[in-house]
Amino acid sequence: MAKKSSKDKKAHKDAKVAAVTPPSFTEALRVGEGFELVGLDPRSTPGFDGDKVAGEEALAGLGDQLAELQERLYAESKAGGKRSVLLIIQGMDTSGKGGIMRHVVGAFDPQGVHITSFKAPSAEERRHPFLWRIRNALPEAGQIGVFDRSQYEDVLIVRVHDLVPPSQWSRRYAQINTFEKKVVASGTTVIKVMLHISSDEQKARLAERLERPDKHWKFNPGDLDERAHWAAYQEAYQAAIEKCSIDDAPWFVVPADRKWYARLAVTNLVLEHLTALDPQWPEADFDVAAEQKRLAETP
Amino acid sequence: MAKKSSKDKKAHKDAKVAAVTPPSFTEALRVGEGFELVGLDPRSTPGFDGDKVAGEEALAGLGDQLAELQERLYAESKAGGKRSVLLIIQGMDTSGKGGIMRHVVGAFDPQGVHITSFKAPSAEERRHPFLWRIRNALPEAGQIGVFDRSQYEDVLIVRVHDLVPPSQWSRRYAQINTFEKKVVASGTTVIKVMLHISSDEQKARLAERLERPDKHWKFNPGDLDERAHWAAYQEAYQAAIEKCSIDDAPWFVVPADRKWYARLAVTNLVLEHLTALDPQWPEADFDVAAEQKRLAETP
Repeated sequence: MAKKSSKDKKAHKDAKVAAVTPPSFTEALRVGEGFELVGLDPRSTPGFDGDKVAGEEALAGLGDQLAELQERLYAESKAGGKRSVLLIIQGMDTSGKGGIMRHVVGAFDPQGVHITSFKAPSAEERRHPFLWRIRNALPEAGQIGVFDRSQYEDVLIVRVHDLVPPSQWSRRYAQINTFEKKVVASGTTVIKVMLHISSDEQKARLAERLERPDKHWKFNPGDLDERAHWAAYQEAYQAAIEKCSIDDAPWFVVPADRKWYARLAVTNLVLEHLTALDPQWPEADFDVAAEQKRLAETP
Repeated sequence: MAKKSSKDKKAHKDAKVAAVTPPSFTEALRVGEGFELVGLDPRSTPGFDGDKVAGEEALAGLGDQLAELQERLYAESKAGGKRSVLLIIQGMDTSGKGGIMRHVVGAFDPQGVHITSFKAPSAEERRHPFLWRIRNALPEAGQIGVFDRSQYEDVLIVRVHDLVPPSQWSRRYAQINTFEKKVVASGTTVIKVMLHISSDEQKARLAERLERPDKHWKFNPGDLDERAHWAAYQEAYQAAIEKCSIDDAPWFVVPADRKWYARLAVTNLVLEHLTALDPQWPEADFDVAAEQKRLAETP
């Protein structure tokens, strides 16, 4: 980062605020009353008019802003700040979760990021309530936590396959809402993203994994068994989005048939939330002039 | 990654091997018999003839190779491979450890990386042998683990400040060697890097932290107290490098007064070690044609 006067910084900040109002990705993608997943075209690009080339350029241009805001959030925590960000990524197989981790999360400073990938629960995790492992993975102050899958698996795969009785999973929506409200109240901004792909796009992506030897390791025959439950998964997503889109932690549904758009959208969602947090460089808690004098006196 | 035939891949692989022999950064930076830290110019650029612009270009050109090798290492582990990489970064205050994390480690896919930052040991860590917390942070198969400071703090700050009796820290060199041999034998490639800066360069970097309000949070008056022990730290580094540069896990001392060079050198060290590991895409453990047929039959 180049050195900036505080006047430059003020101008820079105003420019950033201007850049995200309106239309913002936050507004364009936030789930509102009466949202219907089936009504959202997975090839659409809400909040962005350009094509792939324009989208990739726009994405490349966000790096500096993102880096500075992330560093400010981190710096704030070193001076006692309690705030953090939690980005939750959900989506069907092949919806691009890995690409979001690589290209969006990969753009952050790795020192301030912690990714947790939630697989089928372990024996120990099964002995605890379903939110136990989630609570243990919440970001520390100053961090951007990222969940690759999340508590929502407990009302998605669990619901589709009846892994627990309906009386049990049906209570979880309210439990998740209560939990997330507490997380937000403790200072964590929660950004919940569903990557929304079409069944045709999934078919094409699975075909590519089968065609390319360097993609075989990503394929599992079980993926095709899961694909047979497509409709049940869409219903389970609709229910989770409807029941758990609370004011404190709304869902954002990102059309994801175009990978470049999904990456641009998720990056902007994080950027807009960080901009709203507006973290500040902490004041020095020492006498700057005195320390400069001490330093000058060293050999 | 573009699709490649297996013939293309073979050619690509040969090209990579050719690109790192000789002179390689591994050869140029590996500590040999009779190494003297005081004899190595912190502004030198071993293994690289170009200037800053050339260095930054060279660094930018390594991304694709690094990404493919990292993904292969990760893929290999999904098929039962046990190999991993551990990059250990040591250096005086302001030597650029944070920049290495941001710019070098930040270039890897974050899904395959785990950074552990070792601070002063916690009360719990103090109740265990000094290697306990290190062992707990070793990378899993397929991962690139990164240590920001490490077991070497226990023969650096601990030695300089006599935090334990000399009889105790003096035994640790042999303990570290025994430990690292086991780690290497278990399948982890260990790359130990010391970022070597001059006292003048540290003074300039501390002055910058004091001058810029957006850097104040990185400054601690204790940094100046530590600076007063410069000579003792250099002796402690010399001892650690001399006593713990074993064949299985040699030290690499990277001149670090030029940040661009240090980043280029560390990136190349990792790249050369990954190239030597030569991880391969796993074979499919399913019948590809049968799965293609099943997929085609889905709606």
